[in-house]
This record gives sequence, C-alpha cells and structure tokens, in this order.
Amino acid sequence: MPDKETGPRGVKIDGRGIARAMEEEVAAEVGRLAERGVVPRLVSVAVDDDDRSFESYSRSRERACERVGIETDSVKVPLMDAERSLGRELAKLSADPAVHGVLLKLPLPSGVSEAGVFSHLHPGKDVEGVHPRNAGLLALGRPRFVPCTAAAVMAILRREDLPLEGRHVVVLGRSRVVGAPLTTMLLDKRTGGNGTVTVCHSRTRNLPQMVAQAEVLIAAVGRPEYVKGEWIRPGAVVIDVGVHWLADSSLPKGGKLVGDVHFESASRVASRITPVPGGVGPVTTAILLRATVRAAARAED
Amino acid sequence: MPDKETGPRGVKIDGRGIARAMEEEVAAEVGRLAERGVVPRLVSVAVDDDDRSFESYSRSRERACERVGIETDSVKVPLMDAERSLGRELAKLSADPAVHGVLLKLPLPSGVSEAGVFSHLHPGKDVEGVHPRNAGLLALGRPRFVPCTAAAVMAILRREDLPLEGRHVVVLGRSRVVGAPLTTMLLDKRTGGNGTVTVCHSRTRNLPQMVAQAEVLIAAVGRPEYVKGEWIRPGAVVIDVGVHWLADSSLPKGGKLVGDVHFESASRVASRITPVPGGVGPVTTAILLRATVRAAARAED
Repeated sequence: MPDKETGPRGVKIDGRGIARAMEEEVAAEVGRLAERGVVPRLVSVAVDDDDRSFESYSRSRERACERVGIETDSVKVPLMDAERSLGRELAKLSADPAVHGVLLKLPLPSGVSEAGVFSHLHPGKDVEGVHPRNAGLLALGRPRFVPCTAAAVMAILRREDLPLEGRHVVVLGRSRVVGAPLTTMLLDKRTGGNGTVTVCHSRTRNLPQMVAQAEVLIAAVGRPEYVKGEWIRPGAVVIDVGVHWLADSSLPKGGKLVGDVHFESASRVASRITPVPGGVGPVTTAILLRATVRAAARAED
Repeated sequence: MPDKETGPRGVKIDGRGIARAMEEEVAAEVGRLAERGVVPRLVSVAVDDDDRSFESYSRSRERACERVGIETDSVKVPLMDAERSLGRELAKLSADPAVHGVLLKLPLPSGVSEAGVFSHLHPGKDVEGVHPRNAGLLALGRPRFVPCTAAAVMAILRREDLPLEGRHVVVLGRSRVVGAPLTTMLLDKRTGGNGTVTVCHSRTRNLPQMVAQAEVLIAAVGRPEYVKGEWIRPGAVVIDVGVHWLADSSLPKGGKLVGDVHFESASRVASRITPVPGGVGPVTTAILLRATVRAAARAED
C-alpha cells in the first residue's frame, strides 16, 4: 500500500461504534421476529470451573442480549462426569424449540471429548460455528455459522471499507477458533476476502520479516503486546484479536487490558489499528447476537 | 534453506515409486480384510457427459484397484434430471453394506446443487473427502477422509523426508479440493505440517515475488507451465499438482502432458521437483485406494 506510506498514522478503529451499528440492525430484526411471536433465545453451557474472566465476558454478553431483546440463560454442569452432563444438556437444548442458539464454553476440561460432546449439539443452533458440520460448510465455501471472532475481524474490515482484494494479509496464529477459519474467510471471495494470505505461528522463523510484508496484519497469537511497532509495515492496517490482563499496581484499577500488539509503538506506524479494549471484542459480541437472531429466523421459517 | 543453495538441482521425485510402495501397503491391508471375508469395493458415480479425460483417469484408477484387490464399479446417470438421479444413486450406494467407498465426479453440471446431492452421501463412504462433515473434521484438526490430491502432496513430502517445520510453504491456488484443504494440512502439526503457509491465487499481486520466498512451492493453479524457473528460489522443493494436455503435432503422440510448472527451467533451480506425468498423479490414486480400504476396515469394525 505505497499510497498509505505518507498517510495518517494510528487512526483508531472504533469497535464499539461498529458494534452499536450492528446491534441496531439486530434489534430491528428482533422486532420483525416479535411480530411473528418469536423471541430469540441464547443459552450458554459451561463446566463449573471458577473461571472469572468467563464470568465477566458472560455478563457483558448478557447485557448486550438484553439491549437488543434476546433472552438469555446459562447452564453450569459440575466438573465430575462433565462429558455426560454436557451431552445431556446439549441434547435437551437442541431439542427445545424455544432455544435458538447454544454457546458452549471452550476449551472443554481435559479428558472430555469434544467430538463426543458436539455430537449432541444441533448444528442449526451452533451460533459459534464450532460443530463439524458448520466448520465443513465454511471450508466448502457455503458458510452458515462461523466462529464469532473470525467473523468480527471480517466485519470490521468490511464496515471500515478496508478492501482485501489482492492485498497481502498476514495472520499470526492458526487456532481452530480464530486463525484457521479466518484464513478461509480472508481467501474466499464469497466471505469478503480475495486476499493473499500468509499464516504464521509459533514455529515460524523470521516472524518480524513476515510481519513486515503485511498490508493487513491480524494478530491472534495469545501473547500480551507481542507484536512490536518496528515490525510493522508503514501504513498497514492492524487488527488485534488478543485480550490480556496486565497487572500493574501503579494503575488505579491494579492493571490494564492489552492486546497481542504493543499499541503505543504500533499506532505510530499503522494507518488504522483496533484498540484493546474497544476493538474486536465488542464486534465479536455483536456477531454472536446476529447469529442468534439468524438462527431464530431460520428455525421459524 | 540456505544449505540447499549449493546442493544438487532438479532431482526428480519419483511419484510412481512412492505410489508402488503405498500400493504394497494397501494390498497387505486388503489381504488382512480378506481373512475376515471383506472385499473392499469402490464405486464411482458420474453424470454422462462424454468427458474423455475422466474416462482415461477412471481406467487407470480401475487398473490400480485391480492390482491391490479392490473391486470397482461405475455408475453413470443421464444429464437430464441429474440431481435426482445422483441423489438416488448415492442413497442406494450409501445404504449398501457391500460398498465401502463412493467417488462422485466433480464438478457437477451447472444447475445441480452440490449440497442437495451430498446430503445423500454417507460421510463414512466419502473417500474423496468432499462431504461437509469430512471437510469440517479436517478443519477442526480431526481429519478422517480428506481430498486425495491434497493428501498426496502431504504423503510425498513425508515419504521423501522433506520436513515442513518452520519452512515457508507457498501454495498457488485456493481451490476447495486442493489448495484450501492442503493449506489446513500444511499448517497443522497433526497432519504433518507445521509450515508457515502463504496462499496465492489469481488476484495475488507480485506473484513472482511471493513464489521467490517459497522453500517449498506447491503449484495448483490449473494453468499449463505457468510457473517459470526464474521465479523459483534456488534449492526450493517444487510439487506440481497440475496436469494438462499440450497439443503439439510435431510429437509422436500429437502432444504431451505438462504440469503447472515449466519443468525444464524449474528443474535447473529447484532441489527436488515432481515431474508430470509420474509425480503427484499416481500418488493421488494410491491415496484413494488407501482411503477405500480404510473405509472398508472401519465399516467392518
């Protein structure tokens, strides 16, 4: 993007604003469903493991559901005999016509078979796109439900009018819930892609050299402030998927949220950049709301 | 691979030899199944459209099946009302316990819904890995049946002891049957990957510059002799997935088979290179045989 080399630097992408716009669209769709007597309902299922970060995410998700008119509920199963309890809960929710979306907290505790648990989840209620059927439909170019974080990255690029066509996109991270499905979407013209995509990960040699090629950089490595500003190509678009709590007793809250990218140095080089918090996170929640409403609309058709 | 920069050049990878070794393994497995009274059976289903290149591929596949002891059959349905006929045939074969593998000729004629047809195919008999369930299991890191050509590329790299760990692999082509599943396998450590992968395609800018980075180059663009030797990094490994018939009346046979890579110039630069014919093609057939025998073994378990 040579045209960007002398352009503005560090313009923040307003994830909260994008999420608000999406929530308005979702709320309108909820209104249309209400006229047909349908209230979308999302239920989360988790193994009870005292994960406080999940609790906090759950609360913000529940508040977002409330804002747009989606009903929510949450189910916790004990760690003991979790596989059977999860299977039973998923089977029950899959069969319940009043439930439209089911969200399963991942990763499952060690020893619990994902394949065994997923076999009880109805693919039409799998709003987070983790069921093999939905992963397969994405891989075959006919996406239905896709992982929400990956979809959020695509939504940001589209809504901010940042085209990928022919651009070199570098994805850091190859996880099944972010990096891998995102790569599929970035490449496929039907999902808004058409980019040239390089996927890097922990075994990549010369990572800074790879990052330096990115016209669009997507960081999903899961390491706080790992990507440095000096690695980034001047004028690149930077999308930061990471969320980490960095403890710092000198701060009023005892710490701060940071992403996978060192924001301060990166924002001096990037043309556009998502902040943490307020970047990919709120858009991911909005994508989940949209998926739930679509699941409800589809179930009632 | 700087160590390869002064090494030997243009050493041909013997696809026929690899296929022979795989066929021996498959024949041994067929022998073990025979002791249990099981004869693996592969049936191909195609719309009758006078495609002579498919006929020739079918014959070579049938001969390979014969060599290892797999029974084959082929079904043709008329173009008229093809979707219904295909669905009916696939449903019948899916229900027939004597049939272990079903191979559907793709692409389907225009107007015929792939999703509609696939819904009649039992995923446990989908030896070419085209069913959404199998595509999903691959995407989720639990591969069962995968597209044979992509699996053939992985088998060649593994059997020739060409490790991918940390290497920069450039894939030219993003098709659902080759480029896309191959990218998944190249990245995933469980499928023999762990490479850093760049996917290029028709919209990629500066293709020669991308190709020049490849320590391992996989050409699946579908254009005869498209990749030139001067694009290739000295010492790179080159795997050529393309097969094209180039008419040339000065040749005894009236033409010759070529790949996506200009072999003569590429073999002066690459360290190892697959020829066409005799490279990826025979290994792809061997992979199909192996998948059929595995399907039979699994069905009888």
